[in-house]
Amino acid sequence: MLTVKTPAETLDIITDQFHCLATQELVPLEAALGRVLAEDILAQEFVPDFDRSSVDGYAVRSADTFGCSTAIPAIFPLQGAVEMGESAPALAANSCLYVPTGGAIPAGADAMVMIEYSEDYGDGTIGLSKPASPGKNIVFRGDDVKPGQLVLPQGRKLGPQDIGALAALGWSQVPVRTTIRIGVISTGDELVPVESTPAMGQVRDINSAMVSAMMRNCGAAVHSYGIVRDDVQLLRQTVAQAVAENEMVLLSGGSSVGMKDATCQVISELGELLLHGIAIKPGKPTIIGKVGAKPVVGLPGHPAAAFFICHLFMRPLLYQLQGCQAISYLLPARLSEKISANDGRTQYISVSLEQRDGEWWACPLRAKSSQITNLAATDGYICIPRDTEGLAAGTIVSVALYSAE
Amino acid sequence: MLTVKTPAETLDIITDQFHCLATQELVPLEAALGRVLAEDILAQEFVPDFDRSSVDGYAVRSADTFGCSTAIPAIFPLQGAVEMGESAPALAANSCLYVPTGGAIPAGADAMVMIEYSEDYGDGTIGLSKPASPGKNIVFRGDDVKPGQLVLPQGRKLGPQDIGALAALGWSQVPVRTTIRIGVISTGDELVPVESTPAMGQVRDINSAMVSAMMRNCGAAVHSYGIVRDDVQLLRQTVAQAVAENEMVLLSGGSSVGMKDATCQVISELGELLLHGIAIKPGKPTIIGKVGAKPVVGLPGHPAAAFFICHLFMRPLLYQLQGCQAISYLLPARLSEKISANDGRTQYISVSLEQRDGEWWACPLRAKSSQITNLAATDGYICIPRDTEGLAAGTIVSVALYSAE
Repeated sequence: MLTVKTPAETLDIITDQFHCLATQELVPLEAALGRVLAEDILAQEFVPDFDRSSVDGYAVRSADTFGCSTAIPAIFPLQGAVEMGESAPALAANSCLYVPTGGAIPAGADAMVMIEYSEDYGDGTIGLSKPASPGKNIVFRGDDVKPGQLVLPQGRKLGPQDIGALAALGWSQVPVRTTIRIGVISTGDELVPVESTPAMGQVRDINSAMVSAMMRNCGAAVHSYGIVRDDVQLLRQTVAQAVAENEMVLLSGGSSVGMKDATCQVISELGELLLHGIAIKPGKPTIIGKVGAKPVVGLPGHPAAAFFICHLFMRPLLYQLQGCQAISYLLPARLSEKISANDGRTQYISVSLEQRDGEWWACPLRAKSSQITNLAATDGYICIPRDTEGLAAGTIVSVALYSAE
Repeated sequence: MLTVKTPAETLDIITDQFHCLATQELVPLEAALGRVLAEDILAQEFVPDFDRSSVDGYAVRSADTFGCSTAIPAIFPLQGAVEMGESAPALAANSCLYVPTGGAIPAGADAMVMIEYSEDYGDGTIGLSKPASPGKNIVFRGDDVKPGQLVLPQGRKLGPQDIGALAALGWSQVPVRTTIRIGVISTGDELVPVESTPAMGQVRDINSAMVSAMMRNCGAAVHSYGIVRDDVQLLRQTVAQAVAENEMVLLSGGSSVGMKDATCQVISELGELLLHGIAIKPGKPTIIGKVGAKPVVGLPGHPAAAFFICHLFMRPLLYQLQGCQAISYLLPARLSEKISANDGRTQYISVSLEQRDGEWWACPLRAKSSQITNLAATDGYICIPRDTEGLAAGTIVSVALYSAE
């Protein structure tokens, strides 16, 4: 008999029992955003690959400019101009060469004087009114990165800034982890598709759409197996197919004890039951099992409960299957109204965030766990530990954001 | 002659000059995640649409249970069981009916007693050991939402929780704003495609890939117009085409004064120049113009500068073109090392976040603005106001996250 676990124990079970199931594939750079890097990316070249000017101006030997000033400019014959994208001629002694921002520094030059400190006398000579120290206004070869340097670690979920770095290093094809496929099965005789008008006693299949959206948001590919009636044999067959075709299976919907029993029975027959019940509110009736190396999870039937279970446990589980870590950022905010003490279970409360006078306020949702439409337009949640007394209005709380993927 | 603007003035120009350019379209619910809602969503029905049990147990008339206890259970003939998804028969006087979680409450019943407080005597009668108050364990019709109630406001970027609410209300097709199309033009004779090996004086086109990724991340559809050589006529022609085919145009790459002049010239010829230069570091050489109602922007050539300008100004501009607001959440973190005073321009410094002993530490990037590979693996940025003295290590700073879309 499995006992009810705490949230921390549940996360331990997830960490211990499941491992990376993703393999590796190469995708074009344009398709790498949001994907998980499969290898450490080491620089294989110098960036930049040549000494470049960081200003528009004149390349000089710095020693030639010493002592010049607005009153007594240093006067140089203008040897010519370096074109963007071209190599630079060598700088002749006591001369200067025009170089635009990003242009190559001529051999022999060791500094740039900005155009703002120059005067073109129109007779082929340039007056410079500010001395330059060696290296001034030059980005040297390898200043950004040198061969062998670690630029991005494997397991990193690639953001736009990472795409920029990969572009700089010439990675037009990027080694990433394959996308985790999740099979979503809706269960329950009372469920009808979203586009239907429910008859008496029926409800729309909310969880499947919501759970699929959340998992897609975290980078998974979701395959829906539709609504399965309360029939153990049909359920077993559908779960077996979903396990064969995906790396993870979520059963969503069935909230009756009979349906929960059927889910447990099917998981036990096909694999192993790991957890039955989590001591949190909402979300207690959660079932976690394992078929081969793949997680098969029975989510609570109440939509808001299913939402929290997905955010708190399925999201980290998905990241783990991809070999990376889910990060939750906590935003400090003031509680807009008091929250009464809870009842011995860790409690999660959805909040909407409002900015007032430059400060964030968290407005808690007062809703039963079944009230999905109230979850709408919320921005994150706060966690009330199991033995907390109530929280007063104005208390600073930590809001875990729903949006930060 | 346009003067350099502060970041606040730049945001004012964006707010004043540009308006929503998106129209409206219907998309299937599965495709609505991350899209911007085009209409207020009002409930058109009751959710739930019938009184439902929130537990597995027995539907009763609450008055019939008064006074019962473990010692003296109230005994009722079992009238039958309500099936999931079916309507319930009316409850006979002094009887009980089994109802699973989510099942319909029979007419005549006004409370549910949990199965945990019952005993099945096996002779067609059930003993209940706990009295129920009226309404106990019932979710009433409309408890979640009633017709006419605002569930989601227009302009909301739809998250998984919102998808759940739309599913509950039967919105299998969702009215959303059309996706903003952005044309990205790379400019500069020194640029070569990412897959090329740059010759002397050449660099890879980093900005185009990075800027495209960031704008895609914010929900735009990006069309690349490739690399355009430093030729005003060619640039004019490409910008005109991009303006015709998109709602917004970003010119990326050209860092030389000549290229900036060409960008200004082209914008002035096709439309109106609004801004030339922002007093921030990095990112000063930014050009914002307008052709018809559409923004045409010349980004700084330095990749990290282009990155900040996109995050700080192009992201809010894109959201504005979609008729919604960009939100930036600030995460408090401790500074891992001191930052010296800056030089009269508002300064943005990229940081990577590390968790140490349950606290977030912001590790600032010490990089020149051209150093894109160092931006890699950072998580957000801090803003140092223009007249700030240096910040000591350990100072609590506010980190704007790159990931929160």
